[in-house]
Amino acid sequence: MLTVHGDNRSGNCLKVKWMLNRLGIDYQWIDADVTTGVTRTPEFLAKNPAGQVPLLILEDGRTLAQSNAILLWIAEGSQFVPTDPFDRAKMFEWLFWEQYSHEPYVAVVRFQRAIAGKPAAEIEPRLIERGYAALDRLEAGLTDRDWLVGDGPTIADLALVAYTRVAPEGDFQLERYPAIVDWIGRVEDAFGIG
Amino acid sequence: MLTVHGDNRSGNCLKVKWMLNRLGIDYQWIDADVTTGVTRTPEFLAKNPAGQVPLLILEDGRTLAQSNAILLWIAEGSQFVPTDPFDRAKMFEWLFWEQYSHEPYVAVVRFQRAIAGKPAAEIEPRLIERGYAALDRLEAGLTDRDWLVGDGPTIADLALVAYTRVAPEGDFQLERYPAIVDWIGRVEDAFGIG
Repeated sequence: MLTVHGDNRSGNCLKVKWMLNRLGIDYQWIDADVTTGVTRTPEFLAKNPAGQVPLLILEDGRTLAQSNAILLWIAEGSQFVPTDPFDRAKMFEWLFWEQYSHEPYVAVVRFQRAIAGKPAAEIEPRLIERGYAALDRLEAGLTDRDWLVGDGPTIADLALVAYTRVAPEGDFQLERYPAIVDWIGRVEDAFGIG
Repeated sequence: MLTVHGDNRSGNCLKVKWMLNRLGIDYQWIDADVTTGVTRTPEFLAKNPAGQVPLLILEDGRTLAQSNAILLWIAEGSQFVPTDPFDRAKMFEWLFWEQYSHEPYVAVVRFQRAIAGKPAAEIEPRLIERGYAALDRLEAGLTDRDWLVGDGPTIADLALVAYTRVAPEGDFQLERYPAIVDWIGRVEDAFGIG
């Protein structure tokens, strides 16, 4: 059986859990509270030298890190990974953009506010500004489109929804983004997220 | 013919140029100096709403952003993208890790020092610390291995070498990392970077 080390408050970890559940794949979930240093122990670092969750452990003991690489490993061959080469390329564009331009702002501000309990006044303005820039870009990408890539839900939607749906916990005002709000509902339905 | 908008001082852009050159693919290169705001003009934003280079434009006008997504588009089917499913997964792990845990520190410090001309004393210590953490993790990944994935060079090596080879321009001391130093030479040879 697959094993996943993950923190249930982390969108990066939940992406993996949602995809496994949606595809009906059995797995063992090992809770890893990132705020306790459990991902920095010698035992964990031997499994993932990057000291990050989620971490997937295959039945033969091989390990795979990075949420979007894990999503791809799990979902390749399913309806959630396009076969058309250009659709695949655009899916990768969104997946890399998510980790570079969205997660470091939208997820980090939400972590600082909702999990670390930092007062709103102490959040670095640059993080909030770049978070809104990411939401602006996502809204533009969803205008006149139901899904980020092609004609149906893909792992790009799942990867992007993970922290976008909880952006209000970081005080981001999603009501400014009607296309995003509609899309969140569609993606939650498509992947059974509730 | 393919068109690439890119800045020759950007490792993200050079990755794409090196891969196209190595595979003997013809392309037109349009210089985009990111420090002049040329990637924020309405004309450029119409091509890439994220306002980033590199940007690949296909012969039919379709566009593709994100350096690692472009690398994959160019190199899929070549010797530089593994066919074994788990090797592919590990390649993706490194590609996502590069954009999330390496580039935002190693490349950003190098940009601030070598391109923006910021004095060493004004670089945020956290960026330097995380840059070294990324180099530590890369060194560990190269111990007893010639390449990051499988038995030969892949786009994971190319993506990681882009900013690692110029890390000294950001005052990172590469002499601490013997496996990285040897690997840089191998990757430069394999891709004809010099």
